[in-house]
Amino acid sequence: MRIGFIGLGLMGSAMAGRLCAAGHEMVCYNRTREKTTALAAAGARVAETPAEAAAGAEIAITMLGTDEALRAVALGGDGIAAAMPPGAVHAAMGTHGIEACRALAAAHDAAGGAFVAAPVLGRPDAAAAGEIAILVGGPEDAAARLRPLFDIMGRVSFSAGPAPETAAAIKIAFNFVLGCAIEAMGEGFALIRRHGVDPAMFYEVLTDRLFDAPAHRIYGDIISREDYDRVGLTARLGLKDANLALAAAEAVNMPLPSGNAWRDRLLGAIAHGHGARDWSVVALEQARASGIE
Amino acid sequence: MRIGFIGLGLMGSAMAGRLCAAGHEMVCYNRTREKTTALAAAGARVAETPAEAAAGAEIAITMLGTDEALRAVALGGDGIAAAMPPGAVHAAMGTHGIEACRALAAAHDAAGGAFVAAPVLGRPDAAAAGEIAILVGGPEDAAARLRPLFDIMGRVSFSAGPAPETAAAIKIAFNFVLGCAIEAMGEGFALIRRHGVDPAMFYEVLTDRLFDAPAHRIYGDIISREDYDRVGLTARLGLKDANLALAAAEAVNMPLPSGNAWRDRLLGAIAHGHGARDWSVVALEQARASGIE
Amino acid sequence: MRIGFIGLGLMGSAMAGRLCAAGHEMVCYNRTREKTTALAAAGARVAETPAEAAAGAEIAITMLGTDEALRAVALGGDGIAAAMPPGAVHAAMGTHGIEACRALAAAHDAAGGAFVAAPVLGRPDAAAAGEIAILVGGPEDAAARLRPLFDIMGRVSFSAGPAPETAAAIKIAFNFVLGCAIEAMGEGFALIRRHGVDPAMFYEVLTDRLFDAPAHRIYGDIISREDYDRVGLTARLGLKDANLALAAAEAVNMPLPSGNAWRDRLLGAIAHGHGARDWSVVALEQARASGIE
Amino acid sequence: MRIGFIGLGLMGSAMAGRLCAAGHEMVCYNRTREKTTALAAAGARVAETPAEAAAGAEIAITMLGTDEALRAVALGGDGIAAAMPPGAVHAAMGTHGIEACRALAAAHDAAGGAFVAAPVLGRPDAAAAGEIAILVGGPEDAAARLRPLFDIMGRVSFSAGPAPETAAAIKIAFNFVLGCAIEAMGEGFALIRRHGVDPAMFYEVLTDRLFDAPAHRIYGDIISREDYDRVGLTARLGLKDANLALAAAEAVNMPLPSGNAWRDRLLGAIAHGHGARDWSVVALEQARASGIE
Repeated sequence: MRIGFIGLGLMGSAMAGRLCAAGHEMVCYNRTREKTTALAAAGARVAETPAEAAAGAEIAITMLGTDEALRAVALGGDGIAAAMPPGAVHAAMGTHGIEACRALAAAHDAAGGAFVAAPVLGRPDAAAAGEIAILVGGPEDAAARLRPLFDIMGRVSFSAGPAPETAAAIKIAFNFVLGCAIEAMGEGFALIRRHGVDPAMFYEVLTDRLFDAPAHRIYGDIISREDYDRVGLTARLGLKDANLALAAAEAVNMPLPSGNAWRDRLLGAIAHGHGARDWSVVALEQARASGIE
Repeated sequence: MRIGFIGLGLMGSAMAGRLCAAGHEMVCYNRTREKTTALAAAGARVAETPAEAAAGAEIAITMLGTDEALRAVALGGDGIAAAMPPGAVHAAMGTHGIEACRALAAAHDAAGGAFVAAPVLGRPDAAAAGEIAILVGGPEDAAARLRPLFDIMGRVSFSAGPAPETAAAIKIAFNFVLGCAIEAMGEGFALIRRHGVDPAMFYEVLTDRLFDAPAHRIYGDIISREDYDRVGLTARLGLKDANLALAAAEAVNMPLPSGNAWRDRLLGAIAHGHGARDWSVVALEQARASGIE
Repeated sequence: MRIGFIGLGLMGSAMAGRLCAAGHEMVCYNRTREKTTALAAAGARVAETPAEAAAGAEIAITMLGTDEALRAVALGGDGIAAAMPPGAVHAAMGTHGIEACRALAAAHDAAGGAFVAAPVLGRPDAAAAGEIAILVGGPEDAAARLRPLFDIMGRVSFSAGPAPETAAAIKIAFNFVLGCAIEAMGEGFALIRRHGVDPAMFYEVLTDRLFDAPAHRIYGDIISREDYDRVGLTARLGLKDANLALAAAEAVNMPLPSGNAWRDRLLGAIAHGHGARDWSVVALEQARASGIE
Repeated sequence: MRIGFIGLGLMGSAMAGRLCAAGHEMVCYNRTREKTTALAAAGARVAETPAEAAAGAEIAITMLGTDEALRAVALGGDGIAAAMPPGAVHAAMGTHGIEACRALAAAHDAAGGAFVAAPVLGRPDAAAAGEIAILVGGPEDAAARLRPLFDIMGRVSFSAGPAPETAAAIKIAFNFVLGCAIEAMGEGFALIRRHGVDPAMFYEVLTDRLFDAPAHRIYGDIISREDYDRVGLTARLGLKDANLALAAAEAVNMPLPSGNAWRDRLLGAIAHGHGARDWSVVALEQARASGIE
């Protein structure tokens, strides 16, 4: 299948690499061209613009960090929605907001194509191993055509129905539950530290049974060791996720009180210079808020 | 060993039953006498007062729901601290606050005995099966004397060091992390519902890997089915836990922003008549706050 | 002076009417044309587009409700920044965000004009009477040229210095302090009501001395009588203000915890159907949150 | 009239001084005896215990800082409730909680006396000048007997009805509205500072009209000058007030979201060593939370 792949960060490179290795014909694009080198070596053609990557492709996949980047790549006269052949499908696999998904779907509809939101769960190493989970929202036939590619890129797909923004809502809510769990852990660890308890001991109790799963093992370990330079997601990107959640909630007139608490600690952490550290650095900000420095 | 056991609610009965079955000599007390029937049938003697249950015991165990109950049972002229023989040990296995633990330790010290805080993790069925985890804070020799009993009652013990209140802090922080995780899940489920996502599908995504542990499986399932009458802990008792956490934090001048969010939803749930339902009913209150009724 | 005036809502009409009455030559524009009737009768010319209103004007004044409307009117090929003669000044007198002010200043600079942010304090009746206060941020000479017009429109001007966004920040912070004061009053009134106190009596105590000023008199009276259909600002517009405050704070990595509380009650009020009532309806939502319906 | 006066802090001394000067027969008590010197010089007799001060008095007035102090002075075998003659009235003029008022009313009822909660609004200088406002809750005849004394001590009395705790609720809610107004101002000032606005200019705008009243003038001035050592009420006592509000709200199952924001900043300020500074130091904590140090 002829695939245009746009956005070759850590996640995108790993995902595109798997498609390339499976024999698909790939034209790729990345804003900073040097990130295309590995994929070019694996046989992909490198385009000069997003539109060039998408022109002639049956499937265009974007893996972009922000809604702004997605809109810039897809909309307008030089966007991929206009460049793609009729009947082609655009799968946006980054984490995007409700409004952006709606705007993209409308643009592709107007251009005679189809839009599928397919955000993923998993880190770059999982992407390289084909172990990510994929949340799929979009028209059924378009989703069906993507299925073989999802099988190459991921371990499992979850169907979120025909509206792309429902897949976005699920991803946003997932990150929200995760971010708030980290925030709560951060508060809990700060509390026991100030009461003289060894963080390693609290970690052991926490993950003994009820929280014996990766979310609490991974982040509990970072927090317990104060190892915030082991970065999975930066605090700045965490703030992007928090804002997506609050915007998705505002769209349905919903307060998210735990989200406020989480977002405020992210803001404080960034204000104190920790924006590039792991988003679990909210635990450090919590400690600081109570005079532990 | 001669054991006085005070407080025969669901948890206490299960724990005392195991000690009785293991052949220990038991004198038990409960405020409402009918709850002593099963234990009496199993060979325990029933006392008329807490002091009578504790008099002559090498070990007194309390399993009480509130700090007020603990203080009423242990302190003052007719309390068990005064009634117990010199050298005896009182293990308080309920969830109690920092201040209460300090007051109890002082009283037992003054009376020539010892106080150990030994709150537990686990539900009544786990207690009946000897599967609970026990957090042990108190003087080393006192803790050592309790060890054989803990081995009968629980699956594992964690040593929290010589100060009873550190065990209390760990239990309080554990419940805090759990309560806040439930609150965040409740917010996440409300968010996806308002965006037209099937809660069962979100549950599946959530527990697929990162949250594949009992905390999120148990409470995610209740929330997804809105099955709040499947009560593990009531919202009212959840509020007690939230207040213990905020008090423990105030003792060290620490704000707990996620705790505020959690506590406020508990208060709202209680205000709307759900105080006796499962504490995950915060999810219902969250839904209500955004107009889902 | 030749003035282009764009945006004739309640505030804009009152302000433009005063300028017209003072003998200034006015070309006005409003999206819905019927709102221009009164001004036309007073001698203003009615333009077909914003650009037509601004072309040839020494001063363009906009009084628009949102940043989106301001950007649509001012930026791009058919915007007033491009249409105004070199050296002309655009005064944006609506409440706008930091980013929007920066974008406008850059656009006018590039076009050889000047941009002044001049948000106002006061309601339509104050605007009609020339009693509003005007916060002026922008280049000194541009501000000086606006001074005679400000003297006609307002009671007092405050100079916020050469950067337009500082005037915006002051207006946003002012509305923030006001909105949060209303929210706190709403919580206080709900509290005393649930304790059986007559709201009118609490109003009397509150405004007896310490809060004897319009903010607490006006909104305390509405809340005490539950007279939320006496609308000064709608809850929906209040939410816009709350969002402006949180965005201005995010721009400097600042959490605004009172702002979260306020915004959440606005969202709840809107979710429960009160979006068009006065923004003090947060007091009703607060009452509802605790079971008073 | 024979009056027992207990609690001679800044407020109590000023109030007792006025009663003494008006010719009332006064027996006074204070825990640290040196604070009784001035009153003794003015003709008051100094008692060795609270009970001695109250024995034989028609009216006992307490002006105490905490519920604990009030309970210690009034309840139990050596408390003033037991010591006062039948038909005597105890007016508690400090700021006390709902529960404490109920407990006091019950104790005095049982002892054949009457209890009136009469918290005051105003600072020591207002108390010295007889300019405080008095909130009166209690049985009508008891309140009537206190009226002549209230007329000497205060500028105005507000009748809160026959239940003492309603007066307490009003005082608590008043302090809540004030504390939250200060918190919101603190957030607003931090916001404009980070946007480069002169705090003195924001103060001028704020108090120009809408907030032209003592609450915003007094605290806006302290915050604008960062003059937190001009102490009216300490942050520690502010925390007491915040806790009273949250407890009064919990008693009716009510969340107080603005109260959480306020309380958390007080806790943070205390954690950072500012517990003895003015309670408006929450503004400093807010600034610190965003990296202004």
